[in-house]
Amino acid sequence: PTSKLPDVGTSIFSVMSALANEHKAINLSQGFPDFNCPEELMELVTKYMHAGFNQYAPMPGVVSLREKISIKTEKLYGYQPNPDTEITVTSGATEALFAAITAVIKPGDEVVVLEPCYDCYTPAIRLNGGIPVYVPLALPGFNVDWDLVKRNISSRTRLIIINTPHNPTGAVMTKADMDELAHIVDGSDILVISDEVYEHMVFDGIKHHSALENAILRERSFVISSFGKTYHTTGWKIGYAIAPPALTAELRKMHQFITFCTVTPLQLAIADFMDNEAHYLSLPDFYQEKRDAFCQYLAPSRFEFLPSSGTYFQLLKYDAISKEHDQDFARRLIQEVGVAAVPVSAFYHDKTDHHYLRFCFAKGDETLCAAAEKLVKL
Amino acid sequence: PTSKLPDVGTSIFSVMSALANEHKAINLSQGFPDFNCPEELMELVTKYMHAGFNQYAPMPGVVSLREKISIKTEKLYGYQPNPDTEITVTSGATEALFAAITAVIKPGDEVVVLEPCYDCYTPAIRLNGGIPVYVPLALPGFNVDWDLVKRNISSRTRLIIINTPHNPTGAVMTKADMDELAHIVDGSDILVISDEVYEHMVFDGIKHHSALENAILRERSFVISSFGKTYHTTGWKIGYAIAPPALTAELRKMHQFITFCTVTPLQLAIADFMDNEAHYLSLPDFYQEKRDAFCQYLAPSRFEFLPSSGTYFQLLKYDAISKEHDQDFARRLIQEVGVAAVPVSAFYHDKTDHHYLRFCFAKGDETLCAAAEKLVKL
Ligand SMILES: CSCCC(=O)C(=O)O
Ligand SMILES: CSCCC(=O)C(=O)O
Repeated sequence: PTSKLPDVGTSIFSVMSALANEHKAINLSQGFPDFNCPEELMELVTKYMHAGFNQYAPMPGVVSLREKISIKTEKLYGYQPNPDTEITVTSGATEALFAAITAVIKPGDEVVVLEPCYDCYTPAIRLNGGIPVYVPLALPGFNVDWDLVKRNISSRTRLIIINTPHNPTGAVMTKADMDELAHIVDGSDILVISDEVYEHMVFDGIKHHSALENAILRERSFVISSFGKTYHTTGWKIGYAIAPPALTAELRKMHQFITFCTVTPLQLAIADFMDNEAHYLSLPDFYQEKRDAFCQYLAPSRFEFLPSSGTYFQLLKYDAISKEHDQDFARRLIQEVGVAAVPVSAFYHDKTDHHYLRFCFAKGDETLCAAAEKLVKL
Repeated sequence: PTSKLPDVGTSIFSVMSALANEHKAINLSQGFPDFNCPEELMELVTKYMHAGFNQYAPMPGVVSLREKISIKTEKLYGYQPNPDTEITVTSGATEALFAAITAVIKPGDEVVVLEPCYDCYTPAIRLNGGIPVYVPLALPGFNVDWDLVKRNISSRTRLIIINTPHNPTGAVMTKADMDELAHIVDGSDILVISDEVYEHMVFDGIKHHSALENAILRERSFVISSFGKTYHTTGWKIGYAIAPPALTAELRKMHQFITFCTVTPLQLAIADFMDNEAHYLSLPDFYQEKRDAFCQYLAPSRFEFLPSSGTYFQLLKYDAISKEHDQDFARRLIQEVGVAAVPVSAFYHDKTDHHYLRFCFAKGDETLCAAAEKLVKL
């Protein structure tokens, strides 16, 4: 049978992690912390399991979790989504993205995708018959060139996907960016997906701007986040989408038949743990320290730093070390140096190569130090 | 925007459960146990969380879980699927069904769906541009009329979906059924999805026949199961699909972008718990006792029993009590009698009504007794 996704191979994250294991390299490729989640959060899971909360959750998510998400959203972004009609809990942000795209994209619809970008947008668009229209982020800072976005909009544009803080580059959109986007979509039929899974990781006193803060965007956006990054539980797969009632209704029709619901004791535990605001409020400092430590250890190296304002990723340019394609350089780095990173070309549909590798710094200090020690030798 | 699933409303399971709560009715509608999962299983989850297994699982599933599934499959069905290339762990059987259908159905493809059937097949087919071709199961026993299936096959038929043990009717396919199906698809391009989530709940000494036992079916089938029913953990959402390597490769391309992976500590805990074969081997007796108790309590009633050979559902015909449509009767039963069941017409695309309600008997004895006490008064 012919494949519906002929171009898809094994994900770069799996490939690099497998290669890292094979060569016993320090794995800074796939994005996940190497430290555990808060003790209290695990204790809550245990409590709810033993209390018998192991059966189906309500399809849109456990009520207490949707309420806490609503309260948190109000505090951070000044808008309080209705838990009944505007919030849906999903199996990670991945399912939220897939469900949102599936809910609105029909054959022939165009979707503006800013590159480099996370690898799950394009397959979801293609499976629904949509056409990705790739717009490159502008070097050197990987910021959005809104004029270029405008020039790529047609009468068939149905959706623009943004991601801030941005994976893989660490760029963070400004209020002016959100205003530009609002200006572009205002009065049109164009919807927005705003992937904000790194919302709590922004550095140097910068503020994360959510699409929810902008009244024009809010009424046409799926704003997607996840607890995996926030609570160091990437393997728990609890994400969510906030969208106006009409969009939420369509998203839930998809969610109902994609997974129906997500893990009950995890949802209940997270809902309770969300009262601990200090945890997420401390994340910027927590990760900024890691970023700064990693960069400091690397200061004597020949790598060039792209400033990372958010996420737990740092891009390093290796131009002074090698002129290889980043996929080749990344492989050699694992095999010969013992450090795994992700080549940024993997985030471009045509493998555009700017000689950048992405390093995940969500790791203990010894790990960052040991990796840097190897990298400074290059 | 126009909906991609205009006919989908709130699922009958959510509607009935909500109505049951509102009227404080005994809820035998949505299929889930009202008792807890094994203590040891929860302790394993706690152990793995505290040991730090809270990050992404491998995309196809944790290795130990796939190995245990392979061993169990060999023991029960005489075929040992390769964990690396033939087994994929998903977010419940729902995701496995969605991913399998999405992997193979293209616009214009026909899919034979036997009715009554679980409500997630049709939306997945429609979202992929497929055309469901509904073939009714034959009364009185809701068995498959294979001649009728044959007459509904065309050059565009791409897939046949079967479900055994069967939700909602409790019918179980025989070896002869599997042979008939194999005969129909042999030499054609037609694939099969065999939904076997109730594989461990078969009564009266009857044997569950898996599509995996049949060499012709095995090479063209996605066989789908789940741990939710087996371990009384419907809210954990861990399912899986077994399929030959070429089909598994396509299914994984979908899974990778639908949810990427499922909850790590739950997968690890289930893998260990699977060594306890006594648990699933005791399930037929465990549930047969419940079925028999429920039917005995109801013996003095005016309901007529459809023999249930598997699942945890019992169909009851209310012809002697009322001539109402089953949706109306089901509502009245909640409001006036205080017992919630699912009208079987909800499992037909055109709401065909045979005056049957589906009762879930995965409940403690007092619950079954209390429900029967109300029902015998009718
Ligand atoms: C789902 S594996 C990829 C993890 C991740 O978010 C990343 O590394 O970018
Ligand atoms: C996912 S809710 C439906 C549960 C179930 O399998 C059923 O009641 O048939």
